[in-house]
Amino acid sequence: MKSGFKTVALLTDFGTKDHYIGVVKGRILKELNEGLFVNFIDITHDVSPHDVKQAALLLYFSYKYFPHGTIFLCIVDPGVGTERKAIIIKTSNYTFVGPDNGVFSLIYEEFSNFKAFEILPEKTFQPPFSTTFHGRDLFAPAIAFLLLEKNLLTFARPILKKSLIKINFPCPQKTSYGYILSVWYVDRFGNLITNFSQKLAKKPFKVIVNEKEISLVKSYGYAKKGEVVALFGSEGLLEIAVNQGSAYEILNIPEIKIVWL
Amino acid sequence: MKSGFKTVALLTDFGTKDHYIGVVKGRILKELNEGLFVNFIDITHDVSPHDVKQAALLLYFSYKYFPHGTIFLCIVDPGVGTERKAIIIKTSNYTFVGPDNGVFSLIYEEFSNFKAFEILPEKTFQPPFSTTFHGRDLFAPAIAFLLLEKNLLTFARPILKKSLIKINFPCPQKTSYGYILSVWYVDRFGNLITNFSQKLAKKPFKVIVNEKEISLVKSYGYAKKGEVVALFGSEGLLEIAVNQGSAYEILNIPEIKIVWL
Amino acid sequence: MKSGFKTVALLTDFGTKDHYIGVVKGRILKELNEGLFVNFIDITHDVSPHDVKQAALLLYFSYKYFPHGTIFLCIVDPGVGTERKAIIIKTSNYTFVGPDNGVFSLIYEEFSNFKAFEILPEKTFQPPFSTTFHGRDLFAPAIAFLLLEKNLLTFARPILKKSLIKINFPCPQKTSYGYILSVWYVDRFGNLITNFSQKLAKKPFKVIVNEKEISLVKSYGYAKKGEVVALFGSEGLLEIAVNQGSAYEILNIPEIKIVWL
Repeated sequence: MKSGFKTVALLTDFGTKDHYIGVVKGRILKELNEGLFVNFIDITHDVSPHDVKQAALLLYFSYKYFPHGTIFLCIVDPGVGTERKAIIIKTSNYTFVGPDNGVFSLIYEEFSNFKAFEILPEKTFQPPFSTTFHGRDLFAPAIAFLLLEKNLLTFARPILKKSLIKINFPCPQKTSYGYILSVWYVDRFGNLITNFSQKLAKKPFKVIVNEKEISLVKSYGYAKKGEVVALFGSEGLLEIAVNQGSAYEILNIPEIKIVWL
Repeated sequence: MKSGFKTVALLTDFGTKDHYIGVVKGRILKELNEGLFVNFIDITHDVSPHDVKQAALLLYFSYKYFPHGTIFLCIVDPGVGTERKAIIIKTSNYTFVGPDNGVFSLIYEEFSNFKAFEILPEKTFQPPFSTTFHGRDLFAPAIAFLLLEKNLLTFARPILKKSLIKINFPCPQKTSYGYILSVWYVDRFGNLITNFSQKLAKKPFKVIVNEKEISLVKSYGYAKKGEVVALFGSEGLLEIAVNQGSAYEILNIPEIKIVWL
Repeated sequence: MKSGFKTVALLTDFGTKDHYIGVVKGRILKELNEGLFVNFIDITHDVSPHDVKQAALLLYFSYKYFPHGTIFLCIVDPGVGTERKAIIIKTSNYTFVGPDNGVFSLIYEEFSNFKAFEILPEKTFQPPFSTTFHGRDLFAPAIAFLLLEKNLLTFARPILKKSLIKINFPCPQKTSYGYILSVWYVDRFGNLITNFSQKLAKKPFKVIVNEKEISLVKSYGYAKKGEVVALFGSEGLLEIAVNQGSAYEILNIPEIKIVWL
């Protein structure tokens, strides 16, 4: 009988107004024996409905800060109940569980030697066998089996990595003067997180937002209240921000350029 | 001294912007000894304010997926501080705690031989004795006593089941051609969950929404993007849904009919 | 090696749509050894962005209901990445961790003999050393060190209490006829929580809202549905409320007076 403390991190578009994520957690606990204790950590359940790309990004921003051994359950699953595969991705330190729809695209790029498995529904899927709530009826039992350290090959089979579905996250677009950036994510503070990584900033540059130069600062607090500024955020990506305000409210999604000096 | 791991599932209309539900959890933990550990699972705290019927429904959709031994604390309590009773419902596998206002109506129908108790405020109610926050001052101590496995009769007394307040959940309305349905719940995806159970679908039928027939599919993913369809959802109830969209945004609460073929 | 169960209560303006608070929790767990288990209790993460005063108030409404030994992490931090201090406040029963910007102002008033420490970034701050996410890179490691019961003086230094930043919470304004009140907080039910404490109600009085007298009741349920009433709420402060409705929706922030009879 397995015992001890385990961490399960959850990332879904289930929202928090319904019962869905609570039921998934209950169902996981129901499969376990008494000595095994699970600490559920919600990354977020407010991924925009059906936005697999956003979930892939938030997972990428998060996973590396969790303890080794953490199991991640990531469900943004517009294809639930169709032929899409349910998969398990194992890296040396982490296990990722979710639908095969690209939600793990950035994980595939981070780990060279991960292993991929397809969950066998005939071994995992449990009554009431819904076609719309695999979080409860298929993924929750699979997570429980992983927590119980059941032999993976009794409920999953190895699959080829090249068969996995991937979403493309394009780099900034190179131009004669520098780059044109895309906004990858808008957070609750209205910060616009772009695809321009600090690693690309190999020489001095200025940031142009809607044809106007803005200051590059070290942190929000170094801008005047209400000033639009650029800074490298917590994942080393360039953000457009407003000190104590929302860049998104002021600018929506603006045109953003990097111009070499 | 009790020790071990326990699950407490929580369902309220407290919301998450205030401190209320955090304080209830803190207050429960404050009453316990060190060896006793509680895993709080939030079903939801975003029940529409004062909507006892919605809470009853979400509890019904959820409880059976939790481990045996789970204690459910369900507080949607517009009558807090008045003469309404605070009750404990014990079934063979679960314990339910909340106000006697109908929030457990569907639990009463599921279990033939449950037992009902009234919490004795004089044994449970604790300072600061608020009249508006019994979640903290009355229900939290009662939950703690249950976790500590105190003798129930030291802080509650048996009451007659027929004295319990019940809310009516009407069946679909029978007509010459089939049924007229009601929408019981709208989830965050905008799916309209009706009162038509799969068990009533004893012969072939078509689904008519606002006078137009819609397709009955197996799962969301089998519809074209944006198509309005019907399907049996995760609790075996007919749902009106839009693949990767919101049926509620498109249709609001429409007229829904079942017509036998 | 430390083992056992610990409670960490969290109060931030991080919201729940992003990955931020999940990552803070993951990062705390990552620093701990296996036998040490943390129960994270969310007070709320929906403090209005950058509203330090609101956070101070919610902490004051909450802390005393948590078990002794609880560590509170309170991050509303518009000055993140600037010279503002990161501090630890120790009282006989609780530990509070957050930025030195007044978020603990009401705690200072509650405890006469607390001790104040500045977190030493050079001992605590960890890669990737972001300037915008000290919740992850500085506060989470500090919380972990506290959980591991590391010697406080290895990662913090005592500071003078009088150096701490404080926010003023003004008392009701005294007049010839009684008091003019301020609204300190609006909760999710639309209840308006004022700064008039039950302790100030030393003689009979009436409550005047926008020049009209309203009834003082014992609890919401004693008002007619939709009636505007006053009552002393769960923290002993006068609230303006509407039974089964929202006072804020009806009145916004009205003029509120106490008039001695």
